[in-house]
Amino acid sequence: MDDDMEGGNLGPYQERPRAFPNMRSKSYTPLIFRIIMRINARVLFVLLLLGLGFIFYVGASTSSVIVFVFSVCTLSFLVALYLMKWVLAKDEGPPEMVEISDAIRDGAEGFFRTQYGTISKMAVLVGLVILSIYLFRSTTPQQKSSGLGRTTSAYITVAAFLLGALCSGIAGYVGMWVSVRANVRVSSAARRSAREALQVAVRAGGFSALVVVGMAVLGVAILYATFYIWLGVDSPGAMKVTDLPLLLVGYGFGASFVALFAQLGGGIYTKAADVGADLVGKVEQGIPEDDPRNPAVIADLVGDNVGDCAARGADLFESIAAEIISAMILGGSMAKRYPSGFILFPLVVHSFDLVISSVGIFSIRNTRDSGVIGAMEDPMAILQKGYSVTIILAVLTFGLSTRWMLYTEQAPSAWFNFALCGLVGIMTAYIFVWITKYYTDYKHEPVRTLALASSTGHGTNIIAGVSLGLESTALPVLAISISIISAFWLGQTSGLVDESGSPTGGLFGTAVATMGMLSTAAYVLTMDMFGPIADNAGGIVEMSQQPESVREITDLLDAVGNTTKATTKGFAIGSAALASFLLFSAYMDEVDIAIPEVFVGGLLGSMLIYLFSAWACAAVGRTAQEVVNEVRRQFIERPGIMDYKEKPDYGRCVSIVASASLREMIKPGALAIISPIVVGFLFRVLGYYTGHPLLGAKVVAAMLMFATVSGILMALFLNTAGGAWDNAKKYIETGALGGKGSDCHKAAITGDTVGDPFKDTAGPSLHVLIKMLATITLVMAPIFL
Amino acid sequence: MDDDMEGGNLGPYQERPRAFPNMRSKSYTPLIFRIIMRINARVLFVLLLLGLGFIFYVGASTSSVIVFVFSVCTLSFLVALYLMKWVLAKDEGPPEMVEISDAIRDGAEGFFRTQYGTISKMAVLVGLVILSIYLFRSTTPQQKSSGLGRTTSAYITVAAFLLGALCSGIAGYVGMWVSVRANVRVSSAARRSAREALQVAVRAGGFSALVVVGMAVLGVAILYATFYIWLGVDSPGAMKVTDLPLLLVGYGFGASFVALFAQLGGGIYTKAADVGADLVGKVEQGIPEDDPRNPAVIADLVGDNVGDCAARGADLFESIAAEIISAMILGGSMAKRYPSGFILFPLVVHSFDLVISSVGIFSIRNTRDSGVIGAMEDPMAILQKGYSVTIILAVLTFGLSTRWMLYTEQAPSAWFNFALCGLVGIMTAYIFVWITKYYTDYKHEPVRTLALASSTGHGTNIIAGVSLGLESTALPVLAISISIISAFWLGQTSGLVDESGSPTGGLFGTAVATMGMLSTAAYVLTMDMFGPIADNAGGIVEMSQQPESVREITDLLDAVGNTTKATTKGFAIGSAALASFLLFSAYMDEVDIAIPEVFVGGLLGSMLIYLFSAWACAAVGRTAQEVVNEVRRQFIERPGIMDYKEKPDYGRCVSIVASASLREMIKPGALAIISPIVVGFLFRVLGYYTGHPLLGAKVVAAMLMFATVSGILMALFLNTAGGAWDNAKKYIETGALGGKGSDCHKAAITGDTVGDPFKDTAGPSLHVLIKMLATITLVMAPIFL
Repeated sequence: MDDDMEGGNLGPYQERPRAFPNMRSKSYTPLIFRIIMRINARVLFVLLLLGLGFIFYVGASTSSVIVFVFSVCTLSFLVALYLMKWVLAKDEGPPEMVEISDAIRDGAEGFFRTQYGTISKMAVLVGLVILSIYLFRSTTPQQKSSGLGRTTSAYITVAAFLLGALCSGIAGYVGMWVSVRANVRVSSAARRSAREALQVAVRAGGFSALVVVGMAVLGVAILYATFYIWLGVDSPGAMKVTDLPLLLVGYGFGASFVALFAQLGGGIYTKAADVGADLVGKVEQGIPEDDPRNPAVIADLVGDNVGDCAARGADLFESIAAEIISAMILGGSMAKRYPSGFILFPLVVHSFDLVISSVGIFSIRNTRDSGVIGAMEDPMAILQKGYSVTIILAVLTFGLSTRWMLYTEQAPSAWFNFALCGLVGIMTAYIFVWITKYYTDYKHEPVRTLALASSTGHGTNIIAGVSLGLESTALPVLAISISIISAFWLGQTSGLVDESGSPTGGLFGTAVATMGMLSTAAYVLTMDMFGPIADNAGGIVEMSQQPESVREITDLLDAVGNTTKATTKGFAIGSAALASFLLFSAYMDEVDIAIPEVFVGGLLGSMLIYLFSAWACAAVGRTAQEVVNEVRRQFIERPGIMDYKEKPDYGRCVSIVASASLREMIKPGALAIISPIVVGFLFRVLGYYTGHPLLGAKVVAAMLMFATVSGILMALFLNTAGGAWDNAKKYIETGALGGKGSDCHKAAITGDTVGDPFKDTAGPSLHVLIKMLATITLVMAPIFL
Repeated sequence: MDDDMEGGNLGPYQERPRAFPNMRSKSYTPLIFRIIMRINARVLFVLLLLGLGFIFYVGASTSSVIVFVFSVCTLSFLVALYLMKWVLAKDEGPPEMVEISDAIRDGAEGFFRTQYGTISKMAVLVGLVILSIYLFRSTTPQQKSSGLGRTTSAYITVAAFLLGALCSGIAGYVGMWVSVRANVRVSSAARRSAREALQVAVRAGGFSALVVVGMAVLGVAILYATFYIWLGVDSPGAMKVTDLPLLLVGYGFGASFVALFAQLGGGIYTKAADVGADLVGKVEQGIPEDDPRNPAVIADLVGDNVGDCAARGADLFESIAAEIISAMILGGSMAKRYPSGFILFPLVVHSFDLVISSVGIFSIRNTRDSGVIGAMEDPMAILQKGYSVTIILAVLTFGLSTRWMLYTEQAPSAWFNFALCGLVGIMTAYIFVWITKYYTDYKHEPVRTLALASSTGHGTNIIAGVSLGLESTALPVLAISISIISAFWLGQTSGLVDESGSPTGGLFGTAVATMGMLSTAAYVLTMDMFGPIADNAGGIVEMSQQPESVREITDLLDAVGNTTKATTKGFAIGSAALASFLLFSAYMDEVDIAIPEVFVGGLLGSMLIYLFSAWACAAVGRTAQEVVNEVRRQFIERPGIMDYKEKPDYGRCVSIVASASLREMIKPGALAIISPIVVGFLFRVLGYYTGHPLLGAKVVAAMLMFATVSGILMALFLNTAGGAWDNAKKYIETGALGGKGSDCHKAAITGDTVGDPFKDTAGPSLHVLIKMLATITLVMAPIFL
């Protein structure tokens, strides 16, 4: 791998001038954007109006809801345009800042061009593969009934895929485009006031959030309307409208496809640069972060833009698109008996999302105008206030949307149940954000314990961190499980029934909860985008060697950005969990696997493995810290030990370890034994009251199966990693890479230390655990059968 | 947690004298063992003979197979007794060795007593809980048909549970009992020759292996025979023999229960002592491992015995018991139409295991007798030779057992199919051992890469190790999946049919494969026990400050022990995977979830998540190493950078990161897209040829569901751990725990570095991945539907 570094295949970067400040060579904006940007703004406006006219024409031919969606999206694009103009109107600061910002922009745009070049080639390839598969396969019965020919369905799927890929790419580009321009403006504003800097960063983030969410909604709406008209949906002999959403799946896949590679490439870029810069800069040379002397600093700053901004834009775009489509598919199956509002409901929810998030963004105002001295007010509080405004509006508009779209005379109170589902989703989002904050904010216990573990060395720090991470899966899984079950139940009892009169709508209930969770997506994305922009601004300030006071402001914003980034991740994974549950339930219709019992049981089972491993590793880490402190104490109190003049007190260490292990073994052991029983019993009771006598048994079955599979993988991971670390150390001790006593050897010892509890405590205990779960279930079956 | 260290609740250790060498105070052997050991050997022998006579009487009343099993177990206990006598006859070496060995023994036996005191109390409690549940529940239809009253079934289950727990406890005790006595004898023998030391360690390991395996087999056989006679099985109106194995489940649960806590307590003990001793001793003070100056060294040596020996004994005991019982349950369902050999087959296989493993153990002879100078021959090669002997014999005896027990006139070639299943199992064991060796032995690429990653710091070492561990799950999962499917297929095509004439025996095929895998368990356990004994011997040699040449011999044995321990873990998890698959398939009969499609698909799906995360993290690690090397190079080549006199070459870092990320994003991305398609397509083809048209769809469905669940948990883990590390560092930077620049801060930076790719590369990519899997499956469904 060193070959590449020495100058092998560096791609388009090879010929670029090496030395700063002459880094900027030419613009790397993709051709299409260059063309768009060179067109006179008025011409663009006219073109835009014509396009909009067409879109409205299409919308009007299908449904008034589509017209509403189009209008809101258009409006939000105008709002986004205003935000962009506002941000770009801010000054770029002194030349040294501009210089650095230009270097970052060039790096980011250059990488973006190459990366998306690769991705677009792959997308075309995948499109061709899909085309050939669809052209040469036999038509399914479903297709025949829908009246779609083989060729038509092939082209439709590929077209949707390519459109999804293109939009996802644009979403990524927009995220990066604004962030490389906003960063320097935030730095410049930070020279004046914290509040202004905050506002610039938020509005820049808001711009891309509105564009990304708006584009996701608009893209689906356009596809829907186009297919509707083109295929003559609902006319005699043609396709039914309820089958239409299935055609949109290709759009979701295209979006995911681009987002995956955007996230991977960007993620690797940003962290490789960051880790590399830190390891040499901070650890070896002891220079601060973002110091201009560090050769990797520009790469690090570029990474923020291509990793966090571009990738997150594509990621959120994909989330929303996937969630809208899966909810529309489920709505389609409902709409066979009920009004078609069920299909278009997700589009309405996200249209309102655009409106309320805009309000939230504009609620963060520059108080300088109002003359109050709030310059150093806690930025987190300001962002939170905006979030609260958005959340409250979300609850209101969600209720409105359900009444508007989901009211049906056959089940007049159904809309209210679904409004409650939405509330469940909104609350879940809130809980997720809270849990993430609890585990990652140093105001709370977990991070403080982690910090304390650092005081006994690199090894205990890593063990504690891994344990913390494994443990942190438990509460979110419980939250997700509860929200899936309660939303499912609310949907099931909504009064909607299928042909045979049995209650349906359970799955749609969880879909509505997912929508509730994502109903403030644009504002959340704004907060998320805020992070890397502030981070970058801080880098520019540091590199251009601004006064301490300016640095303080950007540091503050950066710290807030870190928290918002972490909480957004909690939000993203929570919504991903619900959205993927919906997506695969669409697939599971085809093969008979019971849901949501299986999904919830499975989540709980896998969580059990993670929590158990966490506790086992953490027990070792904690006890080892006690030993370290005792040994240190003895070395200090009995200085003769090191010269063999005094005997160390071995017995004390023995008794510390012995009593600690006895104490620590109870918690994980009890977890393993009690949890299947508790889960089985609780769901049996739940099943008893909801008329599913076998619910407990089913959930435990799923729990068992998933715990087994997760347990096998986790044990493999722990055992092998531990063994490999151990032997890597031994290998170095044979004299390789510097041999004993070298820095390399020290690092290897850290690895060995981390591996110890992996391979000798948690790993082997898991072997026992997975078998015990099965036997305990068999023995305890009377409780939940 | 510091409270306890300062002398809070230290239990029975508190009053012990603190200073070495007067540590030994009194024997901590549990009462029952003390009584047994004080009885005159001849009296014991007569009692043993009487007991055996009774056992044989019981055996003869049920089946000649049971007599065979009893005889083999008795013989193997005699062989074990011979091995023990042989080991104990070896000298204990000079007084300084004895002194240390005594301290270790006291520590180990003291901990054992306290630990098992706690465990036995808990076991009694659980027994009572089971009793009350069984007494107060309503009887199941199955029970009614079997003619068992509520009370009888309650007492039977509890008795089996307690017997299992007791035997598991004894298995653990035996493992530790011999190892604390053998360690000093190995040290002493190491003063004479490596070969003799090896032989002592192997025979000591062999003793406990034979006792553990023999006891597992004997325990099940005794229970089976007792229930058979007591319940008057197969007499009119009473229980059918085919239902009998279900009563044994309690035994398996009891064994697991004790094994879990033994493994947890012992595992925490051994690693807390080890990590603590290393962190201060090796890292801070720079003194060698097992140096007598380290106060934690005795605790570390005690840990080897209570963790590795005692816990592994209980673990393997539990594995074999669980596997025998689950196979007997499946055999019972086969035996409804076919001879009862199906039920007792597992006992026969493990009886042969005892015989052939004894041969393997005795094949390792002291070549001094034969006059050859092979003193420093590679010990690994010697152990491997013994293993090869055992494996070859296993193949032969397995064929023999299948012909003897599974031949039936209705399907005359079925036994041969099952013999092939056994071969599949034996080969899987071999492959597992090989894969583990590949990933953990430093003769191979992975560990060398890991060692290289240490040269760029603690952080890259940890990232590389975690990636390696995650990646190492892939090949074993493939091996397990292939062996489950092929054994299932062999069983299915064996010609056995159920009442309706459709092929049965698929599950029993996988059970036979599991037995094949475990058919050399006693020898494998011997190799495993060898490790901690050799490790301890090395510690005693180091602590008693023996000459360098002696230390060299024990070091060599220790290194071999590490490899055998790692490979045994591979073996253990492989067999655990198969055994738990069997166990839960017994439960899944009750609720309708399709297997093994779901299990295999699930394994593959979860594996996908691990492998994807591995590659994403590894990509960052590798690229960061390139950056580190480049930055280091610039600092060396341009010394003016640090004084702001020279501009660093930022562009070079940017281009390194950019080209590396583009290169690295392809592999994980392609994995995510291609694997569901490949899996779906392969299983569709497989299903086509085996007459299951929906097989591909089902496997993909399971893959999707498990990947989603695993992906959610893994993403939660990665995101939270990363965020927490980041903020722990920030917390310290606020001045806590020493503040910036302290050692604590350095350790926190390591954690932050490790967390970077977790939270910003792998974690967010997983959000995208889990949704993409669902969309890709929907789009690609035509391939596998």
